[in-house]
Amino acid sequence: MTDIDWGQVAQGWLDRLAACSESGPGVTRLPFTPEHRAALAVLTELMEQAGLTVSLDAAGTLIGRLAGPADAPVLLMGSHQDSVREGGAYDGIMGVVLPVLALAWLQRDGHALPFGVEVLAFADEEGVRFPTALMGPRVLAGQFDMAALDLRDRDGIRLRDAMQHFGLDPEALPGLRRDPADVLGWVELHLEQGPVLEQAGQALGVVTAICGIERHSVTLTGMAAHAGTMPMALRRDALAGAAELTLAVEAMARDTEGLLANIGALQVRPGAVNAVPGEVALTLELRAPDDALRAQAGDDLAQRAQAIAARRGLGLAMTRTYAQAATPCALALRAALGDALRACGHDAMDLPSGATHDTSAMAELCPVGMLLTRCQSGISHHPDEYVDTSAMSAAIDTACAFLRNLRPKPL
Amino acid sequence: MTDIDWGQVAQGWLDRLAACSESGPGVTRLPFTPEHRAALAVLTELMEQAGLTVSLDAAGTLIGRLAGPADAPVLLMGSHQDSVREGGAYDGIMGVVLPVLALAWLQRDGHALPFGVEVLAFADEEGVRFPTALMGPRVLAGQFDMAALDLRDRDGIRLRDAMQHFGLDPEALPGLRRDPADVLGWVELHLEQGPVLEQAGQALGVVTAICGIERHSVTLTGMAAHAGTMPMALRRDALAGAAELTLAVEAMARDTEGLLANIGALQVRPGAVNAVPGEVALTLELRAPDDALRAQAGDDLAQRAQAIAARRGLGLAMTRTYAQAATPCALALRAALGDALRACGHDAMDLPSGATHDTSAMAELCPVGMLLTRCQSGISHHPDEYVDTSAMSAAIDTACAFLRNLRPKPL
Repeated sequence: MTDIDWGQVAQGWLDRLAACSESGPGVTRLPFTPEHRAALAVLTELMEQAGLTVSLDAAGTLIGRLAGPADAPVLLMGSHQDSVREGGAYDGIMGVVLPVLALAWLQRDGHALPFGVEVLAFADEEGVRFPTALMGPRVLAGQFDMAALDLRDRDGIRLRDAMQHFGLDPEALPGLRRDPADVLGWVELHLEQGPVLEQAGQALGVVTAICGIERHSVTLTGMAAHAGTMPMALRRDALAGAAELTLAVEAMARDTEGLLANIGALQVRPGAVNAVPGEVALTLELRAPDDALRAQAGDDLAQRAQAIAARRGLGLAMTRTYAQAATPCALALRAALGDALRACGHDAMDLPSGATHDTSAMAELCPVGMLLTRCQSGISHHPDEYVDTSAMSAAIDTACAFLRNLRPKPL
Repeated sequence: MTDIDWGQVAQGWLDRLAACSESGPGVTRLPFTPEHRAALAVLTELMEQAGLTVSLDAAGTLIGRLAGPADAPVLLMGSHQDSVREGGAYDGIMGVVLPVLALAWLQRDGHALPFGVEVLAFADEEGVRFPTALMGPRVLAGQFDMAALDLRDRDGIRLRDAMQHFGLDPEALPGLRRDPADVLGWVELHLEQGPVLEQAGQALGVVTAICGIERHSVTLTGMAAHAGTMPMALRRDALAGAAELTLAVEAMARDTEGLLANIGALQVRPGAVNAVPGEVALTLELRAPDDALRAQAGDDLAQRAQAIAARRGLGLAMTRTYAQAATPCALALRAALGDALRACGHDAMDLPSGATHDTSAMAELCPVGMLLTRCQSGISHHPDEYVDTSAMSAAIDTACAFLRNLRPKPL
């Protein structure tokens, strides 16, 4: 053990990294920009202080490597360096800093691991600059679509050109694919972005699965009318139908363990104080760690929407616009993370991750695990995003225990 | 009786008047414009053919006068010449054409009335060009606020200047005030703008009252959150609260005879597929022919909104932004119109008017009555607005019977 407050050390590095931002509130650090370059310089300094060998791959992923025995497999850890616009100082980047500090601590204690470790700082997870994301992990898993290199940012700059300008060689991306036989697994530390751990009084939790997501576009069509002259009994009010559906969605999610459902966007037409709503367009999103449960909920809600529309004489158009399967975490890694938590005196609380992470893409390559840290009031993607130093200390402590106890074979 | 198809005659004049429009779909005829001028020319021709004495008052109201015996009071009839943008060929203007044709018919039959009649074509009821309306009837009732003359249209032209350019003298407006002792009453013919008469199989109906209106601005404030990471049980979803309120409003109006209620506009913030709604702003409108019933409904719904917000942990701001009292029609005029309907072989169906009319302002001057004609599918303020010629024939017939039977005293 040590008298260093590792959470404080992490906060010091995160403060320096938060300064690698466009001006304005919070942190704005987009991929392949001067702010990205500045963050890589800070991370390189951190990784080198921790005794890691630093390199930058063709996808813009910064890699800090601690070599293991010859021919030993490598454990991959890390997260992403980028933020949303006016985001916080922890999302992504904390998951790079914490494992590096854990390796620094192990190095300091002279602890040799029976496997190699690489801590990765992916360039782009948020997908804010270009209409694509997760290039770094997708390249490693051999799942990257090279056509995405022609996508453009809002200034018209192609991803390919932005990477070249950053000094990278996009044509080298296919060569970055890793052989699964060489990879022990992937473990990501990330803030929860929700209030569950804080409410439970826990600093950390082990992810069971990253929820699958499906999204539907729903349009209810009634008949616009003068609200002063159309009797109630003759109305075909699209908003009243949408209100019924909204409450049905809420009730189903409340009553279904593991299901999250949201109607987040809703537009009313014509949208005047004295006009009975003739059309409502809304979005429905469902998330669950269990794909079958989520698909069943989607089917059930489609039936509910049909019944509501039929009873009210409304037209219904419901289209699934997006679907992403759940990513279950590897049982062995879940168990190892839980053991490490208990070894450090914490409860081993399980929870699903409702948000998508680099881990979702890394699951195409190898077994994955995730540890979430509590964050204040569940706030993320906002300048007020905050993870207290005791939670970060606990995460570093737990990562050390996890690394010390991990054996290459059982995975 | 006669073999003239008066409905067809009316349609012919309405076709000519519909041509007095800006180009584009339907009819666009705003006050104090070349289109207004063109319509006045057609109406003048019509009124003169009907034997009326035509004049234009300082408010731009065209007046066709049939003189009665010396010192006899005058019955005022008519409606407005203007339309909404891309409106129909009947709203307002039909209520000028039909009574003029009724007077033409009476003249043709040599029928002398024991009172004078003036048919008025007000300049502006819709309030589309300037942010004010009903100047014509308000001036007659001595209720016009001269400050409105400084209001501007979207081109920056002041009402005062538009009137002067039209050849009118705004300073003369106060002198137009009528002495209630000289006025027998006001009767307006108008299309229903709703589907009630059509559904009831009636050509005409007698208005019991013009509904009072109140409008509320309602804001429900919850907490925006990531829809993937905020558990259902911890959400404060402003849209779910708004959905409950929407259904409560609908249920109350359905269960309360005479009450109309509408949530016509609704905005969700932040309004993203993966964000739990943090705030919803909506408009609530209530209409009823009975002010006490409407006020009670407003109070009850405010309590319901409070209860919904409290149960869901939402903030609630609810402000009454507009209130207009109901205008009851005079019992004597209702009875006289009902008698005329029956005399012409129609049922005397009563109904409230949910829309506001010139009649609302005329009620400040004298007893008022209204006769509504059925319109196709309840459509108005739209190029498809249509009143069939048999309904217009019935209206002219009924107006004649009403005028023949009316005696100055009983009102």
